[in-house]
Formats: sequence, structure tokens, C-alpha cells
Amino acid sequence: MAILIRGGAVVDANDTYRADVLCHDSGAGGTIAQIGPDLDVPPGATVIDAGGQYVMPGGIDPHTHMELPFMGTRASDDFFTGTAAGLAGGTTSIIDFVIPNPRQPLMGAFEDWRGWAEKAAADYGFHVAVTWWDESVHRDMGTLVHEHGVSSFKHFMAYKNAIMADDEVLVNSFMRALELGALPTVHAENGELVFRLQRELLARGFTGPEAHPLSRPPEVEGEAANRAIRIAQVLGVPVYIVHVSAKDALDAIIRARSEGQRVFGEVLAGHLVIDESVYRDTDWGRAAAHVMSPPFRTQAHRDALWHGLQAGHLQTTATDHCVFCASQKAMGRDDFTKIPNGCGGVEDRMAVLWHFGVNMGRLTPNEFVRVTSTNAAQIFNLYPRKGAVVQGGDADLVVWDPQRTRTISVATHHQNVDFNVFEGITVKGVPTHTIARGELAWADGDLRAERGRGRYLKRPPNPAYFEATRVANRLKEPEPVAR
Amino acid sequence: MAILIRGGAVVDANDTYRADVLCHDSGAGGTIAQIGPDLDVPPGATVIDAGGQYVMPGGIDPHTHMELPFMGTRASDDFFTGTAAGLAGGTTSIIDFVIPNPRQPLMGAFEDWRGWAEKAAADYGFHVAVTWWDESVHRDMGTLVHEHGVSSFKHFMAYKNAIMADDEVLVNSFMRALELGALPTVHAENGELVFRLQRELLARGFTGPEAHPLSRPPEVEGEAANRAIRIAQVLGVPVYIVHVSAKDALDAIIRARSEGQRVFGEVLAGHLVIDESVYRDTDWGRAAAHVMSPPFRTQAHRDALWHGLQAGHLQTTATDHCVFCASQKAMGRDDFTKIPNGCGGVEDRMAVLWHFGVNMGRLTPNEFVRVTSTNAAQIFNLYPRKGAVVQGGDADLVVWDPQRTRTISVATHHQNVDFNVFEGITVKGVPTHTIARGELAWADGDLRAERGRGRYLKRPPNPAYFEATRVANRLKEPEPVAR
Amino acid sequence: MAILIRGGAVVDANDTYRADVLCHDSGAGGTIAQIGPDLDVPPGATVIDAGGQYVMPGGIDPHTHMELPFMGTRASDDFFTGTAAGLAGGTTSIIDFVIPNPRQPLMGAFEDWRGWAEKAAADYGFHVAVTWWDESVHRDMGTLVHEHGVSSFKHFMAYKNAIMADDEVLVNSFMRALELGALPTVHAENGELVFRLQRELLARGFTGPEAHPLSRPPEVEGEAANRAIRIAQVLGVPVYIVHVSAKDALDAIIRARSEGQRVFGEVLAGHLVIDESVYRDTDWGRAAAHVMSPPFRTQAHRDALWHGLQAGHLQTTATDHCVFCASQKAMGRDDFTKIPNGCGGVEDRMAVLWHFGVNMGRLTPNEFVRVTSTNAAQIFNLYPRKGAVVQGGDADLVVWDPQRTRTISVATHHQNVDFNVFEGITVKGVPTHTIARGELAWADGDLRAERGRGRYLKRPPNPAYFEATRVANRLKEPEPVAR
Amino acid sequence: MAILIRGGAVVDANDTYRADVLCHDSGAGGTIAQIGPDLDVPPGATVIDAGGQYVMPGGIDPHTHMELPFMGTRASDDFFTGTAAGLAGGTTSIIDFVIPNPRQPLMGAFEDWRGWAEKAAADYGFHVAVTWWDESVHRDMGTLVHEHGVSSFKHFMAYKNAIMADDEVLVNSFMRALELGALPTVHAENGELVFRLQRELLARGFTGPEAHPLSRPPEVEGEAANRAIRIAQVLGVPVYIVHVSAKDALDAIIRARSEGQRVFGEVLAGHLVIDESVYRDTDWGRAAAHVMSPPFRTQAHRDALWHGLQAGHLQTTATDHCVFCASQKAMGRDDFTKIPNGCGGVEDRMAVLWHFGVNMGRLTPNEFVRVTSTNAAQIFNLYPRKGAVVQGGDADLVVWDPQRTRTISVATHHQNVDFNVFEGITVKGVPTHTIARGELAWADGDLRAERGRGRYLKRPPNPAYFEATRVANRLKEPEPVAR
Repeated sequence: MAILIRGGAVVDANDTYRADVLCHDSGAGGTIAQIGPDLDVPPGATVIDAGGQYVMPGGIDPHTHMELPFMGTRASDDFFTGTAAGLAGGTTSIIDFVIPNPRQPLMGAFEDWRGWAEKAAADYGFHVAVTWWDESVHRDMGTLVHEHGVSSFKHFMAYKNAIMADDEVLVNSFMRALELGALPTVHAENGELVFRLQRELLARGFTGPEAHPLSRPPEVEGEAANRAIRIAQVLGVPVYIVHVSAKDALDAIIRARSEGQRVFGEVLAGHLVIDESVYRDTDWGRAAAHVMSPPFRTQAHRDALWHGLQAGHLQTTATDHCVFCASQKAMGRDDFTKIPNGCGGVEDRMAVLWHFGVNMGRLTPNEFVRVTSTNAAQIFNLYPRKGAVVQGGDADLVVWDPQRTRTISVATHHQNVDFNVFEGITVKGVPTHTIARGELAWADGDLRAERGRGRYLKRPPNPAYFEATRVANRLKEPEPVAR
Repeated sequence: MAILIRGGAVVDANDTYRADVLCHDSGAGGTIAQIGPDLDVPPGATVIDAGGQYVMPGGIDPHTHMELPFMGTRASDDFFTGTAAGLAGGTTSIIDFVIPNPRQPLMGAFEDWRGWAEKAAADYGFHVAVTWWDESVHRDMGTLVHEHGVSSFKHFMAYKNAIMADDEVLVNSFMRALELGALPTVHAENGELVFRLQRELLARGFTGPEAHPLSRPPEVEGEAANRAIRIAQVLGVPVYIVHVSAKDALDAIIRARSEGQRVFGEVLAGHLVIDESVYRDTDWGRAAAHVMSPPFRTQAHRDALWHGLQAGHLQTTATDHCVFCASQKAMGRDDFTKIPNGCGGVEDRMAVLWHFGVNMGRLTPNEFVRVTSTNAAQIFNLYPRKGAVVQGGDADLVVWDPQRTRTISVATHHQNVDFNVFEGITVKGVPTHTIARGELAWADGDLRAERGRGRYLKRPPNPAYFEATRVANRLKEPEPVAR
Repeated sequence: MAILIRGGAVVDANDTYRADVLCHDSGAGGTIAQIGPDLDVPPGATVIDAGGQYVMPGGIDPHTHMELPFMGTRASDDFFTGTAAGLAGGTTSIIDFVIPNPRQPLMGAFEDWRGWAEKAAADYGFHVAVTWWDESVHRDMGTLVHEHGVSSFKHFMAYKNAIMADDEVLVNSFMRALELGALPTVHAENGELVFRLQRELLARGFTGPEAHPLSRPPEVEGEAANRAIRIAQVLGVPVYIVHVSAKDALDAIIRARSEGQRVFGEVLAGHLVIDESVYRDTDWGRAAAHVMSPPFRTQAHRDALWHGLQAGHLQTTATDHCVFCASQKAMGRDDFTKIPNGCGGVEDRMAVLWHFGVNMGRLTPNEFVRVTSTNAAQIFNLYPRKGAVVQGGDADLVVWDPQRTRTISVATHHQNVDFNVFEGITVKGVPTHTIARGELAWADGDLRAERGRGRYLKRPPNPAYFEATRVANRLKEPEPVAR
Repeated sequence: MAILIRGGAVVDANDTYRADVLCHDSGAGGTIAQIGPDLDVPPGATVIDAGGQYVMPGGIDPHTHMELPFMGTRASDDFFTGTAAGLAGGTTSIIDFVIPNPRQPLMGAFEDWRGWAEKAAADYGFHVAVTWWDESVHRDMGTLVHEHGVSSFKHFMAYKNAIMADDEVLVNSFMRALELGALPTVHAENGELVFRLQRELLARGFTGPEAHPLSRPPEVEGEAANRAIRIAQVLGVPVYIVHVSAKDALDAIIRARSEGQRVFGEVLAGHLVIDESVYRDTDWGRAAAHVMSPPFRTQAHRDALWHGLQAGHLQTTATDHCVFCASQKAMGRDDFTKIPNGCGGVEDRMAVLWHFGVNMGRLTPNEFVRVTSTNAAQIFNLYPRKGAVVQGGDADLVVWDPQRTRTISVATHHQNVDFNVFEGITVKGVPTHTIARGELAWADGDLRAERGRGRYLKRPPNPAYFEATRVANRLKEPEPVAR
């Protein structure tokens, strides 16, 4: 079942060059067999004409929440519908989150999620959240790293009285992660402030979605990002800040990187293009549909995010895909704090990044590949199996037509939700074909996603930047004074 | 009992000019009766010849801990000896701290401290620490402001398992302070990190004082300063960071001030001149004698602090005077975390600031007055009763000889402690006379401090900057969306 | 001819307090005779009822260009009409600029301006511009400082092919200024870039006023400010940046101050409140009327300027008052580069600062006094003769009614020009009386300005911050290596 | 003449993996024929055992000055000896500089350098300096880009009265470069300040090398870097700052990149490890041997540079290799301004970067490849012919033994100069073999460099980041107002 992509220009993180790409079944799944000019068509191979198009590594969305149980309901895209939508948009892998409740054993939660994910149409990995601490958490982190290929852990600094990790949990978990060579990731919002602002706003009569961003201003994010980064700095561990939405948080990242700290930052497609004014929409449903945390921001923040992405201060793009239908959002009709938090985008991220990035001169095509795929693969230690167009790598590819346009709409999208935050935007540059582990999953509008075809991605610990950090730590160790 | 200071140059926050200054007993205590050239000598007046000297407002040390019960012992300078030493050095007022234990009612602690302070030789006020939270704390804060002239509250972000205030306490207390027009002040060190680093260092065999700075690196201070400032920003309340010792914290202040936030910063005389290498002294006693929090830092930090002071990013200088004798420091002989934290300086601050500030071209004489007296009086709402040379103001004055030198030493100082962190430094510029509320308390080496002569200073709430903050807050208030 | 201001609250740089103020003729002009509660009315004294009002130091506008010959015409407010308008607005002193043409001797230009200024109704001083360099300029700078009380010099980094000073002139003049104890001031715009952008814009068909800001973007100002500051830093001389309009320039100032450099920044009333969109007004005349350099900017810049003012990064406010009537502006009808640059404001600055500063919670009343009067007096060495309410100081006072409103308009202003950039703004807080050197020049709407009553202000060199800089320089001097 | 590198681990910009690499003569020179595990040995092939070693792209030094006529003498390494030394150190390409004298036609100078370079042993390209301006320069820039593969131009902001480019030249040349798709590069030091400081120092009796850094303090570099960057920003052209040695310049780069500007920064191996104290060596010769511009700096600057390199704020490493023997340096025996400026390093750069970078945990091996080779190839548009280990690319490879050590010394180096700034440093990690365009040029200590084997590298204009910049520029273009 070979596939030959013919006549396109391969775009990877470093270069753009004319070549055909041949995918075949290597036994261990569909991989890239050959890259080169004018390859022969193997017997029985499917041939894709990529003339005038780009052939790029399939997208990796390192931040999704499929079928997440959250705030009393469950995200409406499950692992099948969500990954299928991703394939329609050129994304061939996701990294989702296992989120144990406080006091819930990590391993139990992990098994739940592994079970739910079996229906996935595309490959997936997991970050596991550390929402509480005791010896069992310490032990389970080790088991997850050593036996299950989980090499990153998530920490929520928000959601007080639920999954919020206080400084003590952060410190414990970061130190354990350092020991294990696993990357701590952080949702950075000061949960105490959010909680208090929510109470104050409700008390002052603010019940609608416009209060959502007021309860989570940029300073709340900047503070938490800075705190997490400084804790990581003091402990000598790399750290990754998810969904950076505010210049305040970005500045904390830039400061830390400029001091030699290994800090990574992720930005969501939505935060790059959607304005905070959506929360003041007089249609409650439209306003509520945009409720996610952190919220959408002003143009000044978006400009900073784009610059950060271009400069390499931010390395990855994601979606935090976690969708709820209007009926679910309605749970917060009288109290904005009860609106399930989350928006979609797993299908649209690549096109949004291309359109507002490459077409606007903010990113080169190679930079586009880095921030949609390669960097995530390297940071989360999937490279070069994922994130590259390289012989022997997984045949996760997207054929991209830079001239074709698409108007994003809930009417045509494949996501299992009745709203799209990018509704009405016409993007130029769309995937014509998506190949996932050697199978054609999206072909000119035909979505061929297959339930359960996705495989769980084991990610080993100790990527190169971790080893370097350890060496640097060792050289900084002080000596006691002999007295 | 009038005093005429004749022939000197008055230096205040704004100007330097030749004038005599006449102090008299106004009935309500010694005040400045007249300022002008060639004043007549009233009958019976003491005449001080200030020829070739400067006449300046007496120093205000806004950060002392006299006879503090701390870490199982008690600071060796009590309110009498400590304020007396201050008078010898030109400091005529202190603001000390009432520090309730967790769960201890604020009013009870306040009364304890008021009682201890009755022996003071110079005027004194109190900040009250908020170390825990419940409704009684909320109520007592109001009582303290409305009935007792306490218009500033202190929060320790360090000292976990003791007096540390977590984010919840900070948020509660800051909001209450805003309501009351009282200034929150913050000891900024991330207590969780300090605690963890202490444990790690002990586990790795570090028991000596050299581990003290290792457990409290600059990042720990910078993080906490940034957090406190951002919490204050979100809540719309001014904030004051005590003993800024690290560039990291200073930078957080500069950032916030550059964004229009009302943030004040204090620096200690010791942090301006003492190097962190003291902790690696092979003499345990000398090293331990320097243990205070935050610890002394490197030259780069000191340079930044001086620049901050000159630029007005930092407004006040203090000492955190809290002295322990060698026998007390010895409590931590086998465990650096048990060395009572604290160093002295109430007697030396003015001379150290003059010598390293004015003599080195970092400060003008007027700037010296601002940072040793005027700014503290304005920020803590004692101005112009204190902090100025102004008719009708308290006759708190120091006559300063810019040519005379003194070698600081435990052998000659008046502080009740067997160590001096400035030992051996020869300063040029010393007080020849100190007048405190109209009485000559220090005259050419003769210390005439009188037990119990100091008065408690009531400080009203709502200084001008607070009112401005309130107006700004009001203008920022959002409106709900009508739907 | 005494004047007693009765029942007001005196506001100065440090304090607000109830007191009457008595002005009299001291022989050497009108000075403040007494300040205190319930003063007696001297026989024949005019009594001003200041009940419910503030009594503040008269404003100092350190940046005006009365009757300036510029771009082929002459500013329409002369020294009489301009200073009279200032008095109507509470401004009692100006510092104007002597601007020699390249190759014109400085002394000759100085004499020209001194002659023109004799008609002034209020006190005035001069900065002298250094627009070229040779030995005579070096010598004349000395003469101006030593014999004529000029202690500040101006440098234009813009206006290529006219008065632009290149790096060589800057370096020569800054070094000479250091020697003399005189303050270099700088108009910071990269003249080469402005020139080139003007050419490009014209070539692309931009002839209207909307091209003016396009030819002078913020980066052009930020670059020049940074350059001037760094040159000053390397040479060890204080420096003052006039009309800071862009965050870019402000940031350069903050950076330098944070490194211990003595840098001052001035901001114009107009730059604090007017938006760059004025240049796109479809009415050519209205757009052209706003043409000044640097141009008005966006809200983000204005926010930064206000924050800078509040934080003390910027110290003074001015107007760059330099007005041209519609018929003069029309010279650039077909070529925006020929529109005479300049706008007004000397009459409105105080009210604009009060309204948008104090009424909006950005400034306390004391900070208002500092930035409208005291700081300028201190930086330019007129203090405490000017800039204070102090016995013996010049009786330059404004009685300010914080409740009264005024709608600014060309229909009612006293400036000799047919446009007002603040047209239509209703300010709350206006001067009811202005006293200039002891004479009532503005009384409840009655302008009593007297031609020629203004005196030339000699300003001695070497203010306190200059002496401190010299000491610091000396301590930094390196030693040669003995070989 | 095939070469098979067997058993090593290939390290490129993105990944590290076990593979053999086969080089062959492709007709168009030696290229990489195959990369993969267990490759067959072609008949007659040379086999290199790379067991336990790394196989990496040969180094690219984008900043050298072979046989440069400068300051009255000529650099002692010519194109043969210099490139040969590079090969011994693992560097397989250089980009040197054509530096016309003012008024000298660019094309003439270019031809001179092309002639001199024919003796090179390794591949070489040229940047051409723009040291003056007229129409012929404008035209020659076009010729160089279109016909000669020169796609970068150099500007010296220092060397007043010689090759210094003032703002007018910068603006003209940058605009032309934008038009051509060629990258402007800048030597950033304020030449006016350097000139003045030199004069002042000489006047004060400083004649020795210790005056060299005093005449070129970090601020002088920071100012110029900021200026060049802002000029580029205003004109919308990417820019590259050579030999960033000071935090001040780095900060300017970080600021600009954070604002979305395409700015690149280069750092020299020497600036990363050598301390400014060398200039105070009491041995004149040793001190003078370190005279280069910018000079070596303090540890704080070096720390910042390493952090910048790690964070990606700086992208390339170079040497500014320009060596002069003791007898040449002696020209400045009595006047430090006459010491020929320049130091060596082309042979040592790779080892210094590995040792202080990878061994110290500052860089991963992949980051090492980026900063020594890949980034330079991409920025200067040589990729993937150079800078990668990729089939079809030039066979420029270095086999690196991370365990082997070498003590750098003039006694053993291959550079044609009698001094080595890295003298005595023992590096761990050295090249055992260097393959240059398919030939073994360095084999276990045997240097087989061949005179004239190097080829001139044509570099096309308009790399990807240039195209992106153009798109962004277009979208920013304003519209005139219709009136």
C-alpha cells in the first residue's frame, strides 16, 4: 500500500527543495521509504500529484483535551472525532492530557485515558497532570516515565479548589521530573487571584461571559509564568509554559531564556488571531463559546505573540482543543464561572498559522514547519520519528496547496461541536492530502479517518537539552566551607 | 529649653541653603520654631555651632526589630538601647514591626509591642504583620487603622511553617488594606523554595552559614517580589517591598513602576555595601554574624541597588536592625537554618549612606535626605511632622560634619550587640549632634538618650498616592454587558 | 503693593497644607514674604480669597519658541503674547531657545534673542543651541555660562541640511558642557532617517500631513534618544531629552537611569493627550495644524508617557510652544515637509496636566507641582527662587480652583494663533489667579500681563547632580599600566 | 576517490543518529553520496573509523580577514595558510571580506580579493564592504549580487577617517541591499566616540594596550548596534551584527527580535572565553597581541553571550581571524591606536565552542552544529550545500572525538602567526578528520591542505527570511489620505 507523492516541494524545518516522497509499510507501520527527485512508482502505489504544492511533516498538536471530563460535563470531541478532524486539517499527532483528580492515583487515571484513546484515528501521546502530591505520586511518575513513555508532566496553577497545584506541589513535582529527565509543563495563571476576582465580579453583578477575561487579566498569567519559571530556574529543571496568551508571560520567558534557562513556550492558534472583544458580544452564546482559559487578548498581546514565535522565544503552536456545545456552555448561563472552559481548533490550526503566519510575512515556510511540527517533536522527544520528512521516519505528511482557499465554518468542519472560533475566516493555504503513518487519511476533501488506527506514542525521557541542563547543574554545584 | 543651631547649611529633600534653625518646646513637644539667617539667640537657649556643617532632617529607619522574639530567642537591642544607638547615628525615628504568631489576635500582639516600646528613647511607629487570616484579622486591621494610627501592614512570603503568608492571605490582606487606605508591605522571598533548598542543602551535608545564601538565591527574592507586585497590581493597591537586596526584585519594581503601578522599594544599608563572600569566612562566628534574610549579595546586585536608589526606583533606606549576640547565633552551630536571622545597623545607616552615597558621587546631599528620611515620612504618612526641616515640624535634626571621619567598630558603637557588619570601615561624614523632638540627644560623642522619651507615632491612612490610586481604580472599572 | 492669598491650601512638591501666603515687593522684585495660618492683612494689600482652592508654584515651561524664525516664517506668538498667554494659564516662567544658524556666532544669536525677549510679560531664560562647531563655539559656550547665566545647551539631531548636529558636534559640545557644568539637552530624532523617509514618501506621492508622522516613526526617536544618552554616558555628562513622545525613547531613558546615569526626560502636554489620527483628518488645515516634531503618537505611547511621568522616569512637562497660523502652515500645502513645524499650548499645559493627571488619578497634586514646576526649577538651577512656595522665593504663584471647568478653545484662548490642539476639551481645574513676581497678572479671567515686565533669568552652572556626577567620574578614572 | 566514514554518530542541527556516511566525487566535486547504517565499502574507498566519534557538518567561519591590508601592514595568514589552519580545526568554509578603500570602486576591490583568494585550501565566499557612497557603489552592489554571488554587504561604524560609514552611507546601502535581497552586516562601534576617547586617552598619557578597551567600552558597541538595528527596522531590511561582544549590543538584538525584526547576531570564539584583563598584562607584547575590536570583555558580558547563543538570540560563531605577528603589533609600541587590530582563531573556534559549550552544558551537540555551521549556511544562503549532513550536499565533514584532548598552543597550531589567544587551554573534543568537498584534508594530525583547492562560493540573494520580510513590508504600506 505504498504512496508516492510526486512533483511537490518538500518543506522541512531547514530547507525547501523539489523531491518526490515515497511512503511504504515498513512492517512497523507506514514510514518514509525514499525522498528524491523523480522516484519510480512502485507497483500498486497510490500516486498523489503534488505539483505546485508543498510536502511537509504532518502537524503535531501538543495540547488537546479529547473527551475531557471537566466542570461537570465532557468535551464533545472524543479521541476519534477529534483526531479525525485533526487529520482533515493536516495534523497527524496529538499529545493529550491525563488529568487525575486530587487524591486519584496517577496510574489509574493514566489507564482510564489510555482506554478512552483507543478509538483515536491518529497517533497520540500523553502528558500526565500532577494535581496533588504524596509518595504514590512520586512513585507513579517514575513508573510512567520508565514503563509507559510519558516524559512530560502538567501542572495547573489555576482552578483553585480543584486541580490547582500550589508551590509545594510544583516544587515536589519539578524536582522529581528533573530526576527522571521528564519535562514539567505549566498552565500559568494565579489561581488564587482568579478565584478572588471571580467572587468579586459575581458580587458586583457580573454574571456574563464578559467577566471571564476580567477574572483572568494578563497580569495573572504573567505572574504565574514568572513564578513557574523561577521555581524551575532555582531547581535547575527545564520548563514548558503551555498556551502563552499574554505579553506578560512571554516577557517572563524571554527574560529567563536570556539568562540561559531552558524554557519553552507554546501559543495557541486562537490566541494568535482572536480578539478579547468577543466576550462582549451581546449574543450570550457566541460570547460563551469563546470562554477558555487563558482568555483571548488584545491586539498588542497578539502582536507580541507573533513576534515571539518568529524570534524563537515561543517554539510550538497548539490548540488546547477542548470543545463544548452550546447546551454544555449553557451550564453557566447565570454564572460565568460555570461555563465549561474550552474552545476548538485542532482542525484549523495549520491553516490559521499558514494564513496569518506565512501569508503575512511573519513566518517563512520553514519556520511554519518548525512551529507546527518539528519543535514539538524535538521538545517532547518524538523526533525524528515525527516532525521531519526523513527516510525511515513515520510517513506523517501533509500536502499543502498554498493557493487554495477555504472559509472556515462550523457548517463544514469535521470537529464534533456546534461552534468554531475561526468562523468566517477565509484562509489561503490548505491541506489537500494528509498521510498518517503511511495511510491516506484526507484526500481532497474526503476524510478517511479510521477509528482506532492511531497508536500510542511512547516518548523516552532525557532529550538532549535535558542532558545539557544536567551538565550545567553539576558545574554549578557549590562546595561546603571547611571550618 | 530652646536650641539654636547656628551657622550651618540646611539640607532638605529639595535644597541646600545657609540658615540658622531654632528649636523650642511648642507645648506639644519640641518643634522647629524658626528657620532663617542670623536668628537671635533666645535667652537660655543652647547654641550649637554648625559652621561648616549640614543641618538635616533626622533619619527615619522604617524597618527595625527591637527586642524581637524570633527563632527561639530575642533580639538583643531593646527599644531603649536600639533607639539610643539610632540617636547616636542621627536617626530620630524608627518604624518597628508587630508580628503576631499565626492564630494570635492582632490587637493582642499590638498591645504587647506597645508595652515593650515604652522604654524607647526616640519616636517610633509600628507596622503590623498579617501572618494568618480570619474575620478577626479583618476586623483588627480596621481597629488598628482607625484607632491606633497603624497605616501599614507587613507580609512575610518566607518562613514556611511559621509566619509565612500564602497567596490567599496576601489577597485577603491586600484587599482589606486597600479598603482602609493602608499600605501593604512585603518581605519577598519564596518560602517554599527556601524551605526546600534548606532541606536539600542539609541533606547534602551543608550545615554552615555558607549554605544560608545558597538557600535564598536572588531568584527566590525576585519571584516573590514580582508575585506580590502583580497581586497588588491586579487588586489595585499600592505596595512596598522591604529590603530589596537583589537586582531581580529591583527589576520587578522597575517594570511595575514603568507600567504606572504605585510600588515602593526599600534597601538596607548592609545590602548596599557588604559582599556575599562573608558567608564563606572560615571563622564560623563571623560568617554566622552576617546571617540575615535576604542575605548579602554580589557586587553586581549592589551596583544595581545604588542605581535604583539614585534613579528613584527605590525610595527608602533602612536596616532591618535585629541583632543577636554570638551566643545566640550559636544556636545554629550545627544547622544553619537555626542561626537566628538578623544584623544591625540602626546606628550606622546614615553614615554608611553618606560615605558610600554622597562621597562616591552616587547621591547628592538632597537625595541623601530623601532616601534616609523624607521619602519614608511621605510614604508612611508622617510628613511633614517628620522628614523635613520646616517650621512647625518636629525638631528632629541632625548636624552633620562632612569632613569628620569615624571608624565603625563594635568597640565604640552603642548598639547592644557584640558584632558590627560594618566593622573597620572608616566613614567620612558623621553626625556631631542629634536633636530629637527638641532635645539634644547626641552631642559630640556624648549620648544623652533618655529611656521612655520616645513617643508612639500615629500615622493616618490614605496618603496622597493612595487617593490617586483610588481615583485611577474607579476609572478602570468595567461595565457589565446588557444582554 | 502686597498681595495676601488667604484661605487656600498650599500645594508644593512635598506637601499640602492650609496656609495664607503673603507676597510683597522685596526691593529685588516681588517675593514671598510670609507663609502661615491666619496672616494679618498688611495695609493696602490686595487680598485674594483662595477658599476651596490650591496655591501652587507658578508653572515653568522649559521648552518654548516665541517668535522663532523657522522654515521661512516666524512663530506667531512673540515673547509678549506668548508669555501673557502663559500667565493666563498659570505659567510664570519660560525657558526659550536661542538657535544660531550654522556658522552663526553663538553670542550674536544670543544677543538677538535677548533683544526680542525684552517685551516678555513673564520671566524667561534661554537654552542656547549648538548647531555647529569650531573654536568660537567652544569659547562662546564658556562666555554664555560664565557671564550670561546660560547653563544648558540644546542639540538637534534632526533637521538635516539645517541645524542638525552630527555625532562629532554632539561629542564636542557635550564635553565642553561637562567642563562648564552646563546641561546638554537633545531633540532626539535621527535626522538622516527623517530626511530619507521624507524623500521616499514624496516620491511615492505622499504630499499631505499624514506623511508627517510616517516620516518620523517612534523608532527614529528611540534611536536618537539612545544615541544621545549613550554618548553622554561614555563622556560622563548628565543629559536631558526634550519632548519625549515615544515609548522607545522613554525606554532608553529608563534603561540609562537604571544603570545609574543622570538622564532627564521632558514630555509635552500635547504628547500626553493627542492621538496620531489627527494627521489623517480629511481637512488639510486641521491636519497641518498638528504638524510638529516629534509628531503625536498612539494611545500605547501616551500610556507609557503618563506612567513614566508618574514613576519619575520623566521629570518635566513642557509645550514646545511654537505656533503658526493657517496661512503659515499653508506654505506646505503641496509638500508636507514644508509645513512649519510647531503647535501651541503654553496657556493650556497646566490645566491639561491637572485634568488628565490629577483628575484621572495618575498624579497626586504634589506630583503635579513637581512635573509642572519644581523639577524644571531644580534641573535648570532656578530653585528655590522658582518652583517652590517658600519664604524669600519669587512670588510666582497660581491659585487653582479644582472644581471650576473651562472648555479650551481658540475662541477664548490668549495665544496669538488661530488654532488650538486642545480645542473642545473641557478641563476641570483652572487657575483663578496668577501672581508673577508679586504682581497679579491673571485675576478671574482678567489678563493683566504687562509688556516688558518679565526679567531675564540667569541660571548658574553646576547644580547638585552635576557635582555628584563629577565625583563619580573621578572615582572611575583608570590608571595606566606601568611597563 | 570515495571516503566512507564508518561507525560514527551523525550530529546535525536537529538530531543525533548512528549512520555511516559515504562521500564520492559527483562530478561537480565531492558530495555526500549516501547516509545510512552499515553502508557497503565501495572499491578503492578510504575508510575512516568513526567509532565513538561524531560526524558533523564542517564548520563555517563567516568572518575572517585573510591577508588583509590594514593599518599599514598585512594580516600574516594568507588565504592558503588561513584556510589550511581552518581545515586542521574542522572548519571547511570561510566567508571573508572585500574592503574597498573610500572612493575605490567595489568591483576593483572585489577582483583584487578574488585574485588573492585563489590560493585558498578550503571553500570561501565574500561579503563586500560599503565604505562610501555614490552611484557607482549602487551599481556595483547590483553587479556583485546578480553576477558574482555576493549576497551580503559589510558596514563599519567605526574607524573614523578611514572606512567608517556614517548614517547616510548606512541608509543608502541598506535600502539598496533591500532592493537586491542582500543582507547588510554591521561592525557596530560608534566611531566618533572611539576616535574621541583615543585622543583623550593619549592626551592623558595612556599609550599602552590597556587603553584599547578603555577607548571602546561596551556602551560604544551597544549604541552602534542599536542604531544599525533601528535604521534597518525603519527601512524594513534584515540586518546582521558581526562580533557581538557586549551585553549592550546583545540586548539591542533581543529587543529588536522581540519586536518582530529579522536581526541576526554573531559572536566570536574569543569573546566567549577571553577576559579583558589581558590588556593589563605587564608584558606589552602579550597585551598588544590581544588588541582587536571590539575588545575582550568581562565575565558578565561573556555570560550574556553564552546565554544569547543558547537562546537563539545569537545565531552564529566566527573568529574575525585577522592575525598580526609581534613585529607587526610593535608598530603601536608608543601609541596603542597604531597597534594593528586583530586576533586569530580560525583553527580553534570549533574546539573552543565544543569545550566551553557542549562540555559545560551550555549547548547540546545539535546546538553546536547550528552555531558553528548550519545557521551561518542558512543566513548566508549556502544551505543545504553547506551546513548539513545531507545526501547531495558538499562532502564537508568533520569527525569529532569528544574524548580526545588538545592543549592549544602557538607551538603546535597551523596558523601563520606567533601568538594564540587561547594559548594553554586544554580542550576536550577535537577533530580527528576533516573532509572538505570530498577530500581528506586533516587526518589524525596530518594536515593535507592543498593550495588552490578551495572554490569560490556564489551565494544567491533572497533567502527565505528576506522574502518573508518583503511580504511583511508590503502589508505595512500606508495609504495617502484623499483630500
